[in-house]
Amino acid sequence: MVRLFISGFGTVGQGLVDVLERRREFFDNKYGEQPVVVGVIDSKTAAVDQNGLDMKAIVERKVKERSVSSVTYTNSIEVMDSVDYDILIEVSPTDVKTGGTGLKNITHALEKGKDVITVNKGPLALKFQELIALAKKNGCKFRFEGSVGGAMPIINLCHENLNGEKITSIRGIFNGTCNYILSKMDNGQPFEQALKEAQQLGYAETDPTNDVEGYDAATKVVILANSVFHRNVTFKDVSITGITGITPDAIAQAASHNMVIRLIGEISDTRLEVSPRLIPIGHPLSIAGTLNIAQIDADLAGPITITGRGAGKIETASAILSDLISIMNVRL
Amino acid sequence: MVRLFISGFGTVGQGLVDVLERRREFFDNKYGEQPVVVGVIDSKTAAVDQNGLDMKAIVERKVKERSVSSVTYTNSIEVMDSVDYDILIEVSPTDVKTGGTGLKNITHALEKGKDVITVNKGPLALKFQELIALAKKNGCKFRFEGSVGGAMPIINLCHENLNGEKITSIRGIFNGTCNYILSKMDNGQPFEQALKEAQQLGYAETDPTNDVEGYDAATKVVILANSVFHRNVTFKDVSITGITGITPDAIAQAASHNMVIRLIGEISDTRLEVSPRLIPIGHPLSIAGTLNIAQIDADLAGPITITGRGAGKIETASAILSDLISIMNVRL
Repeated sequence: MVRLFISGFGTVGQGLVDVLERRREFFDNKYGEQPVVVGVIDSKTAAVDQNGLDMKAIVERKVKERSVSSVTYTNSIEVMDSVDYDILIEVSPTDVKTGGTGLKNITHALEKGKDVITVNKGPLALKFQELIALAKKNGCKFRFEGSVGGAMPIINLCHENLNGEKITSIRGIFNGTCNYILSKMDNGQPFEQALKEAQQLGYAETDPTNDVEGYDAATKVVILANSVFHRNVTFKDVSITGITGITPDAIAQAASHNMVIRLIGEISDTRLEVSPRLIPIGHPLSIAGTLNIAQIDADLAGPITITGRGAGKIETASAILSDLISIMNVRL
Repeated sequence: MVRLFISGFGTVGQGLVDVLERRREFFDNKYGEQPVVVGVIDSKTAAVDQNGLDMKAIVERKVKERSVSSVTYTNSIEVMDSVDYDILIEVSPTDVKTGGTGLKNITHALEKGKDVITVNKGPLALKFQELIALAKKNGCKFRFEGSVGGAMPIINLCHENLNGEKITSIRGIFNGTCNYILSKMDNGQPFEQALKEAQQLGYAETDPTNDVEGYDAATKVVILANSVFHRNVTFKDVSITGITGITPDAIAQAASHNMVIRLIGEISDTRLEVSPRLIPIGHPLSIAGTLNIAQIDADLAGPITITGRGAGKIETASAILSDLISIMNVRL
């Protein structure tokens, strides 16, 4: 039996419960059993049951009462230690300044020899090499496909399918909000209007700084640098330029040369950069809309690009499912 | 030790030797040993050595004398049976009418319990389910990443990374020659001129029928239908329209609606089609040039696209390397 502890029960945590429910037949056919959730916490409340929680009821309660149970806790570690689990699924909110509760929980699980799946960018951007070393030391699987590009399977693609390649660089669009705004600007909208539309559609937050200044994309650049290029860098090592300075004139100028402007993150052994760049129309990186994309330059295969939805409840949970299956394939 | 038998020693076979040589350090670090080639045949000659062949010398001989040794053979099966090998690498020329020597060799290897890696489209398009059943019965690995899209890792992406998804359709550009011609037509060239240019650059053959009539793309559609959708179809089940009828007028008409025309192969549970389609500029499938691309519609992840070089000596060999590594990961 594979027992899960879910830390964080916002959109992604609830999405995961939905995804596990939708894959009941798949798990039955493939493993003859279902993964069981034995513990779940949100920021204040906790529910544990060694025999498995009724997650449908817990989602209903969370939606209605904003809590997973009537039991509040003070220390997440104590809750985690109160139950036997095999895999920690860490999906609490990202804190890129300190790593927050996510960093604490992941570290503790790895110290206890548990496998970990996360989409939490904070711990990965701040303490990647330390966490990898800890996982290795204790023989734990540590997977984080959903932390970059949501449903776009870039990390496992690099680690598994392209395992024999020397990857020389990755360039990509790692923030769907910026790409939506730039695509609208291609059609003649000024920045402020495109941003407002993105906010109305829920693609951009009320304070759009994190997206439009390139900070979110930079976090993904850090994770790819650490995980694919085996570097040891953090947010402050990235050279960052956002899209707020891009004028309709610049867009028109680009268009007159059959180009578009896209916010590109670039990672190599020597570069760490997020900046707006000119991309020829028809080039894979010229895509429009909210998609994420990454172009991986491999020494034998040549350029390989992958695109997918960079965000979304079910989409991000699907990346966790992919990591969960690969761990279950080894365990069962 | 992992021992290889290479059947077919044209561009791809020689490319594989090059790739294995370039990954010596990788194999040493990862497995503490090198894969060893114990047998190789081209269409007429054979070389075997249970202790490992000097493949560099054999490539030199092949280039100079068009043979792998002075020993001619009449039956490839007898050569294969004369040496102990673990994995057959079948890269002889594609024969989509009968499956040719490739089908015979793959069948024989699987019957003997050997693992098989191939990029040969003939056997996969004609006898896929039979070969899969035979591999399963005898506990053999059977991998064929390079048979569709060259270096574009679509098959293993679907089988591994997207293992938990229900894939509802795949639409893609599976023939780089056609896409090159259509991209040139976007810029105002008529079909005949674009084709001539493709021939001069070596992208199209003297008789371009197999490419421009959509037959090559249809073969890939069949392989994806059989391997990803678990269907049991062959070439004759595909509805095929090529690109010879596309006029500059049609291209201009598309452009006036901000669209391009691309030759799209589509596979689902109910469709098997290759035909020219209108694609909006900025859509992932609107890419220009000789790249291959596939858009995979997955029920949880949403649309995921992957692009890569669809042909080339080293690129296709890199797909074989990827399959070889995944087999070695299990064996060693």
